[in-house]
Amino acid sequence: MDSKSYLVQMNGNGVHGKIPVNAKSLNGTGVNGKGVHGHAIHHVSVNGTLYPAKVKSRRQRWEVKPSEMANNTLNPIRAIVDGMKLTPNPDKPMIALSIGDPTVFGNLPTDGSVLQAMKDAIDSQKYNGYAPSVGYLKSRQAVANFCSCPEAPLEAEDVILTSGCSQAIDLAISVLCNPGDNILVPCPGFSLYKTLAVSMGIKVKLYNLLPEKSWEVDLQHMESLIDERTSCIIVTNPSNPCGSVFTKEHLQKILKVASRHCVPILADEIYSDMVFPGCSCPSMASLSSDVPILSCGGLAKRWLVPGWRMGWILIHDRNNVFGSEIRQGLVKLSQRILGACSIVQGALESILNNTPQSFYNKTISFLKSNSEICFNELSTIPGLNPIMPSGAMYLMVGIDLEHFPDFKNDVDFTERLVTEQSVFCLPASAFEYPNFFRIVVTVPEEMMLEACSRIREFCQRHYRPCSRDSNDLDQ
Amino acid sequence: MDSKSYLVQMNGNGVHGKIPVNAKSLNGTGVNGKGVHGHAIHHVSVNGTLYPAKVKSRRQRWEVKPSEMANNTLNPIRAIVDGMKLTPNPDKPMIALSIGDPTVFGNLPTDGSVLQAMKDAIDSQKYNGYAPSVGYLKSRQAVANFCSCPEAPLEAEDVILTSGCSQAIDLAISVLCNPGDNILVPCPGFSLYKTLAVSMGIKVKLYNLLPEKSWEVDLQHMESLIDERTSCIIVTNPSNPCGSVFTKEHLQKILKVASRHCVPILADEIYSDMVFPGCSCPSMASLSSDVPILSCGGLAKRWLVPGWRMGWILIHDRNNVFGSEIRQGLVKLSQRILGACSIVQGALESILNNTPQSFYNKTISFLKSNSEICFNELSTIPGLNPIMPSGAMYLMVGIDLEHFPDFKNDVDFTERLVTEQSVFCLPASAFEYPNFFRIVVTVPEEMMLEACSRIREFCQRHYRPCSRDSNDLDQ
Repeated sequence: MDSKSYLVQMNGNGVHGKIPVNAKSLNGTGVNGKGVHGHAIHHVSVNGTLYPAKVKSRRQRWEVKPSEMANNTLNPIRAIVDGMKLTPNPDKPMIALSIGDPTVFGNLPTDGSVLQAMKDAIDSQKYNGYAPSVGYLKSRQAVANFCSCPEAPLEAEDVILTSGCSQAIDLAISVLCNPGDNILVPCPGFSLYKTLAVSMGIKVKLYNLLPEKSWEVDLQHMESLIDERTSCIIVTNPSNPCGSVFTKEHLQKILKVASRHCVPILADEIYSDMVFPGCSCPSMASLSSDVPILSCGGLAKRWLVPGWRMGWILIHDRNNVFGSEIRQGLVKLSQRILGACSIVQGALESILNNTPQSFYNKTISFLKSNSEICFNELSTIPGLNPIMPSGAMYLMVGIDLEHFPDFKNDVDFTERLVTEQSVFCLPASAFEYPNFFRIVVTVPEEMMLEACSRIREFCQRHYRPCSRDSNDLDQ
Repeated sequence: MDSKSYLVQMNGNGVHGKIPVNAKSLNGTGVNGKGVHGHAIHHVSVNGTLYPAKVKSRRQRWEVKPSEMANNTLNPIRAIVDGMKLTPNPDKPMIALSIGDPTVFGNLPTDGSVLQAMKDAIDSQKYNGYAPSVGYLKSRQAVANFCSCPEAPLEAEDVILTSGCSQAIDLAISVLCNPGDNILVPCPGFSLYKTLAVSMGIKVKLYNLLPEKSWEVDLQHMESLIDERTSCIIVTNPSNPCGSVFTKEHLQKILKVASRHCVPILADEIYSDMVFPGCSCPSMASLSSDVPILSCGGLAKRWLVPGWRMGWILIHDRNNVFGSEIRQGLVKLSQRILGACSIVQGALESILNNTPQSFYNKTISFLKSNSEICFNELSTIPGLNPIMPSGAMYLMVGIDLEHFPDFKNDVDFTERLVTEQSVFCLPASAFEYPNFFRIVVTVPEEMMLEACSRIREFCQRHYRPCSRDSNDLDQ
């Protein structure tokens, strides 16, 4: 071992420590003498190579700030809810119609076969190791088989398994968009798209959904927003927060807009097949012959296990537009942090193949029944305009604020609904859509009835016939 | 509803579709006539607002390219391995000493109590819904209790649960670094740091580990690399790929460098406590009173379940340097895609508290025994310089390439080892450290012995006494 000498290194606060310096390397190029500002070395020589010690750039004090990405990761729901004074009426137990998690009240358990599939995967001890970053081949194959249809066939290689649908959306946006690009996002819409995009320096343009047309897309508005930096159009169908389901014809019109402008579609289809009887919900991919589509889905909603974080991307390429480059890009991005828990991946084939149809039917019939109860109740309350959903697990309610002079806006309205009636609904400002609120229809029926009754009492207390309105009637 | 008129919109290929235009809004500002290039409208008016149609910027053909982030997500291991011709000798069964997954050979199963904890979590049906983005409070508390020590106490709020240690590292880098910043990374070192950093536009500076000093950090080199844009120093201890474990004194020296320059540390301690008997491995946080540290860990290695993706960040703040801003930044980033599977989170408390000490001991004694077998065997092979590890599950072997004129480099050497002997070791070029290869010591003992015997045969065939070397001896 080389002999060592020690140079005392100082800063403004005095002696801080000793740096061992390789004595041999001091020959010739060596170490400069003590310099300005009390700093000792300007260069150190290591193994014959001279390294600038960059003493002048040394930080003199601790200052650790979060990155721009962290600062730009904004959660609109949290931003609004955290700003609300949510103090329930102590005389009434709280009813939360705000949480988009179907498991919270225990009335919608997943199927026993789903739990058994998980336990079998654990007992097999075959799924403790790393899965490939895109998921086990056999699990990808199972998803391909489950989601395939003649108009949009899928192979295992078209499926990438992810840690929940959120990571699927994250990967899809990440592979398609550069900072400075923009994406088209529905308004009202799920806030995660904006959270993810803005954190990556991608701009969000909101296209309007039309409540008077069952939340169909304002196609002209959508089209008017497209420019040369538009890298994808996000379509959520069925919709969170609206519970709406687009018709086949409407989906075809959306696809035509994408086709005219050569913009790929990111289809958020996490609520696919959660549609009420009599309503059909074809996948976007099944309706397109030229628009390349990344479809995001997962187990969360239909199998009622959102915490398990089992999502997927289905790559529906058309005319090789995505080609190997987008596929390779997705594979590379999947290697950053890997995807879903291997146990859930191991259980996936059995979950998809063995869950009885009766389980899905039961969930849907409950959601429809609860939606009808809620819609029928709220429809008869002056000042509220509920919009009947066709799927998913949400219902949006318009507030005629001119009849509620006590409240500035939807946030104010829903805050006071908590204060007076202990009922919490999410103000739709959280979805960039003021003057509405969202109701989650997964709560037990009795709770839904009680909540509607309290909302009625609340509205009756604050409703004022509007003079402008009566003038209008006079005309 | 307003009456509608339709404008035929065309592009170079002729009529493509019809856009309904609100007739009322055409008054005055309206729609321009057909313009250049066969495009129809330059402005559309929707609900009284004039939107530029941006016809000129419309893409005329499909061209979807992966983002820069996708292109910049590079996996050095894949880049090297995919470029190798790995054709095993058909007469010898393949032995892979390359896979850093202790579960692949089935000889290191996790403990029965770990599997039971998972099944209990499933049966409870309490963990199917969304967990908070930072993890269940009770699970965070369990990690805090498990990892706490008097010198570095932890509360639940200091713990963020993540989807594997990879996401922990991703969040830690993401919160500390901006594009253009640099991070200091060990060389040789785990390739993920570079993969993540480069994909985010963060520069990587490699600091040398010294094989002749049991892979201790070249502290002068490390210090010389620090500049005003250095946003963290990553320290991996115990080390992948070296299997080395730093002494307390060496860790203190690293901390002094960080302290002098006011640079926080990202401690990758996923192999913490996987150290051989007689060797201690204090956490970095337990040795520091002024350097703020984000320590990343998880269940993967010690509990032998890497596929389960259960990781965590421990926030060891000092003098409020991280403060609420870094904490809030981590919380915000955790909301992007959420973290670990709720079932594993639900099982975590039981896994940490109920896994018997004998399980850990058994794993470690196996790893030590296999390391000794491997080290002892390879030590007697001319031309190879194995370095005995003190922990983790790896062993690095230097190749005296001057004695192996048949091979250009470590990649060439390991490729031919597959061709001739069906033994695959990862060339350390994958860790930016040429002329070494890495052996994973988790394979069954018989396999390790057989592999060493084949490596001996391979080296004997290709070893050439080196004339330059004998000249040196003459001096």
